[in-house]
Amino acid sequence: MSLEFLKEYEVIINENIEKNIDKIRRLDQSQSSIIDGMEYALLAGGKRIRPFLCILGALIGGLEKEQVSNFASGIEFIHTYSLVHDDLPGMDDDNLRRGKTTCHIKYGVGEAILIGDALLTHGISLLLGHIDGVSLENQVKAVKIMLDSIGLLGMIGGQAADLDQEKSTIDKLETLEYIHTHKTGKLLEGALLSGATLANSSDKIKNDLLAYAKSFGLAYQITDDILDITSSLEELGKPIGSDLKNEKLTYLKIFGISKAKEMAQMEVEKCKNNISNYGKYGNQLIKLADYLIERRK
Amino acid sequence: MSLEFLKEYEVIINENIEKNIDKIRRLDQSQSSIIDGMEYALLAGGKRIRPFLCILGALIGGLEKEQVSNFASGIEFIHTYSLVHDDLPGMDDDNLRRGKTTCHIKYGVGEAILIGDALLTHGISLLLGHIDGVSLENQVKAVKIMLDSIGLLGMIGGQAADLDQEKSTIDKLETLEYIHTHKTGKLLEGALLSGATLANSSDKIKNDLLAYAKSFGLAYQITDDILDITSSLEELGKPIGSDLKNEKLTYLKIFGISKAKEMAQMEVEKCKNNISNYGKYGNQLIKLADYLIERRK
Repeated sequence: MSLEFLKEYEVIINENIEKNIDKIRRLDQSQSSIIDGMEYALLAGGKRIRPFLCILGALIGGLEKEQVSNFASGIEFIHTYSLVHDDLPGMDDDNLRRGKTTCHIKYGVGEAILIGDALLTHGISLLLGHIDGVSLENQVKAVKIMLDSIGLLGMIGGQAADLDQEKSTIDKLETLEYIHTHKTGKLLEGALLSGATLANSSDKIKNDLLAYAKSFGLAYQITDDILDITSSLEELGKPIGSDLKNEKLTYLKIFGISKAKEMAQMEVEKCKNNISNYGKYGNQLIKLADYLIERRK
Repeated sequence: MSLEFLKEYEVIINENIEKNIDKIRRLDQSQSSIIDGMEYALLAGGKRIRPFLCILGALIGGLEKEQVSNFASGIEFIHTYSLVHDDLPGMDDDNLRRGKTTCHIKYGVGEAILIGDALLTHGISLLLGHIDGVSLENQVKAVKIMLDSIGLLGMIGGQAADLDQEKSTIDKLETLEYIHTHKTGKLLEGALLSGATLANSSDKIKNDLLAYAKSFGLAYQITDDILDITSSLEELGKPIGSDLKNEKLTYLKIFGISKAKEMAQMEVEKCKNNISNYGKYGNQLIKLADYLIERRK
């Protein structure tokens, strides 16, 4: 199936990311490799799903793409920070990400810590950049939604629980659900909701989008677990079977592959039901959910 | 000399930090050690000089302490994040900080990365908390000042250059100045300026405070370098001579101890000249600058 519509947003986000990196680079006097590492991590591939969700939330609420491109890029900066820190020794200790050497292998461990820190800090700065036609009240609300989604009560909580379970041997569905709804889900929810908040959307719209994002996050994670087993190194860009090797708790481990596939399909259907009345942009969100099931990486 | 006035602010900040940690802890379901690590790092000691500077900037501009205590605590969260990440293997790799075991020794390396990330994220959330009697425009301006002061063009740039120089053997005054004005100075400046900005202070006041903060930062760093040689493990709370061991570029290495002391004294005089017309609170800033020279840790 075609994801041409996704390409259009990818181009906007990539241009915006490069513009913002150039801006920081021009002002940076540290003569360090941090700005190179930020660019390297940001441009390593990625489908820009989180910025896409943010832009779609804003478009459904009546804003234009151009108004939220900086904010949406800020979300990709923040997502990228989480990947760079996740790959570090002491965390997942991964050498490959999206087929490329990870930051700490290429730039050094201390540098990768700072690359992540800088991505987070500048990401939040981008969220706070001036937006024509959006009230500061709504923007600050949207930024707070993002901060909540990535703090200890959101993404970091999920990362922490993930780190803990690598040390324990308890297979608990509850833990697995906590990890995924927080490590992956919260940022996806925050991206879509912050876009809707920038557009001053009604509670009805926000609730529908939140329900979509919750099912989307779950389907996303289940297919990730499946791909870790069924994909190839070439397609996935990182060694397959790494969850198994790291004794990670996954949906496959608990439910087996056919039940996991069924669960992912069910969540995708829920996605569609929640968003069926939102015209062209709702339709793009539906296509994205369908793509989840079919993706190979 | 007495620093009784500093105690008063320390109490306000410590109470506020504990209140905010309790709030996060009540909501946290991750069952991880991250919240414990955040509290441990935040309550490890520290004189709360950065929050003090922020509050003083606000007081000079006519605000009340209570209005800015959350914002000021946010700055301490952010300062503490920078210490936790600085101590990590790959960075300074320190086992002791303020006489206590560092976070990664006590909680693990992955956990310490997340503890720092959470401190930064929640610190910024605190900066964005509602403030009675301060316009959202001024608050967002103040938050942007803080973000600039801790990003790659500020504190992180200084940390990166510091990391680089440990690998190189070039003794360059220019590099040393860049490191210190950025690694230590920018956050001190940001703290004082953001307080003044919350209070909607005039450009004249902001320029005077900025000049104070610049000299203060330099004097602070020079005395830090001196204490690394002349203090004791007991007083300093970390091994003395560690700069020498790590082959760090310091003011002592370039100028020798007596010239370095002279330079610190000169910067303290500059501090005083810039802030002599600001009544009671200006006087407290002057006392703090004097304390710099006399401190033993």
